[in-house]
Amino acid sequence: MDWPRGMAGRLCYGGDYNPEQWPESVWHEDMALMREAGVTLATVGVFSWALLEPAEGEYDFGWLDRVLDLLHDSGIAAALATPTASPPPWFTLAHPAGLPVDAAGTRLTHGSRDTYCPSSPEYRAAALRIATALGSRYAGHPAVAMWHVHNEYGTTCHCDVTAAAFRDWLRRRHGFLDALNAAWTTSFWSQHYTDWAQIMPPRATQYLHNPALALDFKRFTSDELLACFVSQRDALRAIDPSVPITTNFVLGGWVPVSHWDWAPEVDFVSIDHYPGSSAPLAAEEETAFAADLARGWAGGRPWLLMETAPNLIYEPGRMAVKEPGRMARLALSYVARGSRGSLYFQWRAPAGGAELYHSAMVPHAGADSRVFRESAALGAVHRELGPALFDGAVVASAAILWDDEAWWASQAPAFPSSSLDYLAAVRSVHGALWRAGVTCDVARPGADLSGYRLVLVPSLYLVSDEAAAALRSYAEAGGTVVVWYFSGIADPAPRVRLGGHPGAWRDLLGVRVEEWLPLAPDASVSLSSGGTGRLWSERVRLAGASAVDSYADGVLAGLPAVTRNAVGAGAAYYVSTSLEDPGRFLASVCAAAGVAPVVADLPAGVEAVRRVNPDALVIINHTAADQPVPSAGVVPAGGHLVVPAGPP
Amino acid sequence: MDWPRGMAGRLCYGGDYNPEQWPESVWHEDMALMREAGVTLATVGVFSWALLEPAEGEYDFGWLDRVLDLLHDSGIAAALATPTASPPPWFTLAHPAGLPVDAAGTRLTHGSRDTYCPSSPEYRAAALRIATALGSRYAGHPAVAMWHVHNEYGTTCHCDVTAAAFRDWLRRRHGFLDALNAAWTTSFWSQHYTDWAQIMPPRATQYLHNPALALDFKRFTSDELLACFVSQRDALRAIDPSVPITTNFVLGGWVPVSHWDWAPEVDFVSIDHYPGSSAPLAAEEETAFAADLARGWAGGRPWLLMETAPNLIYEPGRMAVKEPGRMARLALSYVARGSRGSLYFQWRAPAGGAELYHSAMVPHAGADSRVFRESAALGAVHRELGPALFDGAVVASAAILWDDEAWWASQAPAFPSSSLDYLAAVRSVHGALWRAGVTCDVARPGADLSGYRLVLVPSLYLVSDEAAAALRSYAEAGGTVVVWYFSGIADPAPRVRLGGHPGAWRDLLGVRVEEWLPLAPDASVSLSSGGTGRLWSERVRLAGASAVDSYADGVLAGLPAVTRNAVGAGAAYYVSTSLEDPGRFLASVCAAAGVAPVVADLPAGVEAVRRVNPDALVIINHTAADQPVPSAGVVPAGGHLVVPAGPP
Amino acid sequence: MDWPRGMAGRLCYGGDYNPEQWPESVWHEDMALMREAGVTLATVGVFSWALLEPAEGEYDFGWLDRVLDLLHDSGIAAALATPTASPPPWFTLAHPAGLPVDAAGTRLTHGSRDTYCPSSPEYRAAALRIATALGSRYAGHPAVAMWHVHNEYGTTCHCDVTAAAFRDWLRRRHGFLDALNAAWTTSFWSQHYTDWAQIMPPRATQYLHNPALALDFKRFTSDELLACFVSQRDALRAIDPSVPITTNFVLGGWVPVSHWDWAPEVDFVSIDHYPGSSAPLAAEEETAFAADLARGWAGGRPWLLMETAPNLIYEPGRMAVKEPGRMARLALSYVARGSRGSLYFQWRAPAGGAELYHSAMVPHAGADSRVFRESAALGAVHRELGPALFDGAVVASAAILWDDEAWWASQAPAFPSSSLDYLAAVRSVHGALWRAGVTCDVARPGADLSGYRLVLVPSLYLVSDEAAAALRSYAEAGGTVVVWYFSGIADPAPRVRLGGHPGAWRDLLGVRVEEWLPLAPDASVSLSSGGTGRLWSERVRLAGASAVDSYADGVLAGLPAVTRNAVGAGAAYYVSTSLEDPGRFLASVCAAAGVAPVVADLPAGVEAVRRVNPDALVIINHTAADQPVPSAGVVPAGGHLVVPAGPP
Repeated sequence: MDWPRGMAGRLCYGGDYNPEQWPESVWHEDMALMREAGVTLATVGVFSWALLEPAEGEYDFGWLDRVLDLLHDSGIAAALATPTASPPPWFTLAHPAGLPVDAAGTRLTHGSRDTYCPSSPEYRAAALRIATALGSRYAGHPAVAMWHVHNEYGTTCHCDVTAAAFRDWLRRRHGFLDALNAAWTTSFWSQHYTDWAQIMPPRATQYLHNPALALDFKRFTSDELLACFVSQRDALRAIDPSVPITTNFVLGGWVPVSHWDWAPEVDFVSIDHYPGSSAPLAAEEETAFAADLARGWAGGRPWLLMETAPNLIYEPGRMAVKEPGRMARLALSYVARGSRGSLYFQWRAPAGGAELYHSAMVPHAGADSRVFRESAALGAVHRELGPALFDGAVVASAAILWDDEAWWASQAPAFPSSSLDYLAAVRSVHGALWRAGVTCDVARPGADLSGYRLVLVPSLYLVSDEAAAALRSYAEAGGTVVVWYFSGIADPAPRVRLGGHPGAWRDLLGVRVEEWLPLAPDASVSLSSGGTGRLWSERVRLAGASAVDSYADGVLAGLPAVTRNAVGAGAAYYVSTSLEDPGRFLASVCAAAGVAPVVADLPAGVEAVRRVNPDALVIINHTAADQPVPSAGVVPAGGHLVVPAGPP
Repeated sequence: MDWPRGMAGRLCYGGDYNPEQWPESVWHEDMALMREAGVTLATVGVFSWALLEPAEGEYDFGWLDRVLDLLHDSGIAAALATPTASPPPWFTLAHPAGLPVDAAGTRLTHGSRDTYCPSSPEYRAAALRIATALGSRYAGHPAVAMWHVHNEYGTTCHCDVTAAAFRDWLRRRHGFLDALNAAWTTSFWSQHYTDWAQIMPPRATQYLHNPALALDFKRFTSDELLACFVSQRDALRAIDPSVPITTNFVLGGWVPVSHWDWAPEVDFVSIDHYPGSSAPLAAEEETAFAADLARGWAGGRPWLLMETAPNLIYEPGRMAVKEPGRMARLALSYVARGSRGSLYFQWRAPAGGAELYHSAMVPHAGADSRVFRESAALGAVHRELGPALFDGAVVASAAILWDDEAWWASQAPAFPSSSLDYLAAVRSVHGALWRAGVTCDVARPGADLSGYRLVLVPSLYLVSDEAAAALRSYAEAGGTVVVWYFSGIADPAPRVRLGGHPGAWRDLLGVRVEEWLPLAPDASVSLSSGGTGRLWSERVRLAGASAVDSYADGVLAGLPAVTRNAVGAGAAYYVSTSLEDPGRFLASVCAAAGVAPVVADLPAGVEAVRRVNPDALVIINHTAADQPVPSAGVVPAGGHLVVPAGPP
Repeated sequence: MDWPRGMAGRLCYGGDYNPEQWPESVWHEDMALMREAGVTLATVGVFSWALLEPAEGEYDFGWLDRVLDLLHDSGIAAALATPTASPPPWFTLAHPAGLPVDAAGTRLTHGSRDTYCPSSPEYRAAALRIATALGSRYAGHPAVAMWHVHNEYGTTCHCDVTAAAFRDWLRRRHGFLDALNAAWTTSFWSQHYTDWAQIMPPRATQYLHNPALALDFKRFTSDELLACFVSQRDALRAIDPSVPITTNFVLGGWVPVSHWDWAPEVDFVSIDHYPGSSAPLAAEEETAFAADLARGWAGGRPWLLMETAPNLIYEPGRMAVKEPGRMARLALSYVARGSRGSLYFQWRAPAGGAELYHSAMVPHAGADSRVFRESAALGAVHRELGPALFDGAVVASAAILWDDEAWWASQAPAFPSSSLDYLAAVRSVHGALWRAGVTCDVARPGADLSGYRLVLVPSLYLVSDEAAAALRSYAEAGGTVVVWYFSGIADPAPRVRLGGHPGAWRDLLGVRVEEWLPLAPDASVSLSSGGTGRLWSERVRLAGASAVDSYADGVLAGLPAVTRNAVGAGAAYYVSTSLEDPGRFLASVCAAAGVAPVVADLPAGVEAVRRVNPDALVIINHTAADQPVPSAGVVPAGGHLVVPAGPP
């Protein structure tokens, strides 16, 4: 598929454009500035429902006609959004049942955004109507390069309509009520159901919810939201199948839907990504992880960064400013790792609204500003690099397994340690590889792993029998596997796999874990290798494996901490604690598995990604000094190089 | 106006008196102790509704008759309260629609206090009825020196009646729905309204509220509460215009109404003030600020401290005790700064109720206690100082601008830094002046500033065009202005003033701020002067001004941090960071502007205030050592002097 | 009474057994493992309502028949539970009014546990029906050694039915509305009631609740829950009076009912206890306190530890593992202090449900595990020690007063210090005695104290006139009393006792406290003895007493901190601050009162308890070294000794 339509060979550059917030005189300044900045794609209409359909069934497309024409006349393509993430105020009054209800039974109202019930027939009908109206009017418009359906799907509802839909979904998933009772362990706490009608969403209750119900409700919500997307997608596709359709996946601490399931439903994967720390190299590590994950969802194909902040990093409690040049370096990292460009929220900073201080390419101060000048310079970079980086595959010989459902399942309360953090565990491993210059894919459990020399499994709490078997087969066929603590514990119900942890992979790993010993937040345990473990430790018994590292103090002193098991033609490591610095261990594993850095002897703070078809080596210098990179040259301080280079 | 009636030349001394909590035998002990303590004014009836009107429309005034007679016989005046801050339990059953509803839709019930909906016709009718009944019975009573309407107006409601009243208020403010749409930037997040009926109070919603809606709702609530007050005031005034009427404004971190708008509606300003820190001199700085602010609301005229705690300082989590003598020193600070006396919550500690451990002049231990003895000694001081300090103006040549609306607007979520704190910013400047011995008025933006040599504008986020122009005119006419970071950013909508910050005062200050760089909570930035900035920094470009101080490290190294611009006959400084110690900078500004301390070479920890008509110099020694004060004498440790002295 | 029936001379050992969570094949493995582990008692049916009564009035007892038969065949007794703590899902649909409502008016639903309204006639009828059905079927079953009614009674409701029941309860307690108005000080904040119908549970309101209403609501809830218990108990007793009946009291930071009132209603006292800290000796101190408290509730007679965790300590945020041997040492401490054995939650770790990671004797790893091996070893210890420790009284010559109502009352908001913590105050005193090797009973205020040489009263905020007088009489008759700060402040209303603190005991103590000076959380005050006070200090005036220790710095320097008053033949000490280390002071008081440690020169970390009838000295070595104990021998590292020994 040609996506965005008409952009072949040209990287996308631009962002969310909200001309409806400004008088038309500003639109013309926008066009001039966009051209100056090298903008190639503008996202329009994301939250424009109230203006496009000011009364139920009455449309006002005039302003959008003019905007699209203007963009087209300016040589800028449009990502045209359906505005269904925010129903207009009139919808609330006409269709109160279309509003979401929280766990305590409070029906929310408009005044913010995302106030809809995903299961509401009234909401779905209204959303389909406006999407269809937009499709009918604009599918043939030459500016429209793609459809951007909705925005960051992620609203949860607990209303009675949702409850009924949840029961239908459960019937489809479990088939029989007894199967559900078994999967949910409803024999606990007198929760045995004798009628589907007895099942409720996880509404306000006296104490802890059943974790299996909670997980199924998240799966259900993901599927309900996906049905909302598919409804719009199908209508738009029916009108004009030539326009590619996506919706922007949202990343971060908040992942409301299962993107592995969604990815096949979009014409191409796009993500919104906002790093959460401005500390040196922290946003860089986050960016590389998000990009690798997006590429994983895209099945290794190109994807698109649909939103990030041009100049700010939204830390808790503070909007930190990116130092000069950092905007460009982070953009290049996304692109090097497979994004067909860099799109920003937002083009022009609004004078009001709840996000008036979010970052913009044209800030409140206007175009005479460092931010706009950097934005314009970055547009030029995108133009130059388009042919080299528009397409092409990223080269990686290692993969990390990632699963949204495992994350959700591990967020249950009353777990052995409230410090267990799936995202942090995965990021710790990915970050160590990033610092070592090793490129890493992200794969779904159960995926074909045969292309990799090394597969890493950090704290994957829940895994299916099939996915567990796939990992075993991979190792038997010669692959190297590393599994971290709190992996393979539960089946998809989730129910704990009995007989010793990790139930899914005892045989693969040649160990049997008798018990877990979570550490206090400020505690640590020494390892005989000189390393340090945090958060977690385990009483590991060898059952075929040999110890690679051992606990050196505490109640586990002398017992195995890290083990290695020979498996068929491959090997499987087990890491029973959270290594404070996993770098040295991973370096030895990579060496043993034949996984090399992209470039040997890469200086610290320099990032390198290798691409094929077309071949390219992208090197980004995140440091403030010139850095020599073997066989590529000197990368200027804060700058980058893109050099032709085939696979290693 | 003679207020409190019959008190001319006598400072008020006393507090909240709740005889209804005690058998009548205690009342006689109260009278004896009040006389011993020099009490001149007692506030009665604040929460007596349920006893005064035990059933709807049925009154029991007998006990209050006896109390007022007893007070009068004892030579003590009464501040007679209308009890409308706490409707009786019967009101709840008869008029559930008169109870407030929170943002989640929960209708609150009685059992505490302040459970009423300000917009409820049923509540308003009931409040007017009891106020009128009290007025009719007691307006002519010789003990009644004033009306104390309600108590600390501040309840917010989200019910449907409130919603309708909010819409009416919005119609009056904005006129046309399109004007509201523009002011609120409803083009953002699909919030465009096509019918007034679509507008809701800021009820529970999915995510962030529109900050303009939130600000208008605070303005509306202030106006609704003011209407409640005016309704009672007019009824009481109609019955007997000779009795002055006020309501006690509440101060602190919680300011629910716009006191600038309320002040013209009361016959005199009164405040409740409870400092929040017992650290050395901290309560003293807070007290001086509160008193200066109250004097500002009073337009420079005398005002009245209606409530403070005799012996305790309510810190978060702890009721700290005032050291011996501190009660008197703090009282003198209020009086020196314009209060016609010191009134306390409360006279006698109750044996039960939610505030049973709040401070009292007669504590649980009884009159044989340090607290009562200090209270009695302080009564004598009030009697002695009455003629000198009852009336008279406070001398100040500097003013700080303060605005409740700017505070509310700056409390929106998703601002650049959650550490932005308007009250703290203002207190930082006021405190530095206090420590330097400089008396400072507090003025409303837009007020006539011609009487001042120096006007200080700390972090005034929101300002109208008119108020912005007034400050410019003041500087052009020769005044000196200091504006701090995050001032003049928004108009009253609020919408950001574009083109570079601070939009309201770029020309005045001769600078253009391109971007803000909030600092992490534990970070700082060095200045070339040797000073330190906290919380905030900015990329400042000079546009006429010259740099007075510069950033010395970090990404802004070498750029201006503090600037000065010559403006007409005056000057305008801009401070782009939060100075850790603003004292040195302010000293140089004061010197340049001709603003001198009240007394030269005032020792640290000694407070001085100059009064005129009658002339007096009040000096309070907050230290534990005798302190010599030039031209006044030695102020004893922990004591005070009041000496005759004209203006400097 | 023979309890558990048929267990005379045999300590109970076992725990919660949930065969309904497993296929029957596992049941047979359970029987084999229970025999291996020496299990003598299994608790069954706690949350089995949904399986026992799958539809209203339809029962399925087949599986429970087989379980009880199997237990009996295996020589294991059953504690048969009524399952009423968790109504089945069908109950929710059929009887929504039987569900609890929170303070904000949200009616909770099933999906967790404990979702019932204690006052609901529908819930009570359903609970009585299933209890009666169980009783009818199993009262004669040879396996049934006792009834375990419900589980951890503690649910609170705010619904209208509850409100009506609350009013009835208040009528019974207060008789007349005016008595209630006086007790509650409703003259404060206009809360005067003129009709019982005006009284509400403490539902969502604007600000602080009336603390007297809040306390009465807790008393009412305790009584309502007790009525629920009594209803089941009477029905079961009527069916077969030979089976003893209890319900498991819950301890810890959460004490929802007044166990002093409940204890006479059970045939024997049983408790659930989960220590909250795994720090060295911390769980041990907690255990000793809980056991002494349970023995107090039991009136000095034996009681039963119904639940604790075998291998885990549930710390905030972490499930800490007990070091090898600690499970046994803690079990012995309960038994030494009067428990007829050790029962655990739970026997076998479930594969699902909200508590899937709670500890079990058969963990997820199975019986080939350290935990199961230690469990089996501990079963053998129970078998061996049965004859020595099944019965017999614990020897103690000191007692601590404890009162749930005083705790509830002191948890009101707006108290002088949020650091006041009744449980911590009591635990501080008990812990110091534990470390000194002194055994201590726990007594209800007002109880007969004549058997003790020393009575300790830590921070007993609320006390009745009768209980206050009993303590005075005890001292006058020769007893020694120590009263700590914030004791004897309020009567049961609660209303403050006036005239100087502590109102209940000024005469007894010979002091009069004028005012309290709470300390900041990180502050301290030095004492002339060299000790340190925390949290609290007071201005104490001697009125007969003499100072034992004095404040050495701060505003109270030179004033009494600890006093002693000669009272009749006895003495009364007052401690006006929280001693950082109360050990030295208590040692001197114990010496003066003739209270000796169980064993002289007991090494640190070694616990000793003396029993009579039969006589025994139980010594537990919590340290990792062998410890010589005079006249008992060397207690092996981490081990214990039980030696014959009469009273000292």
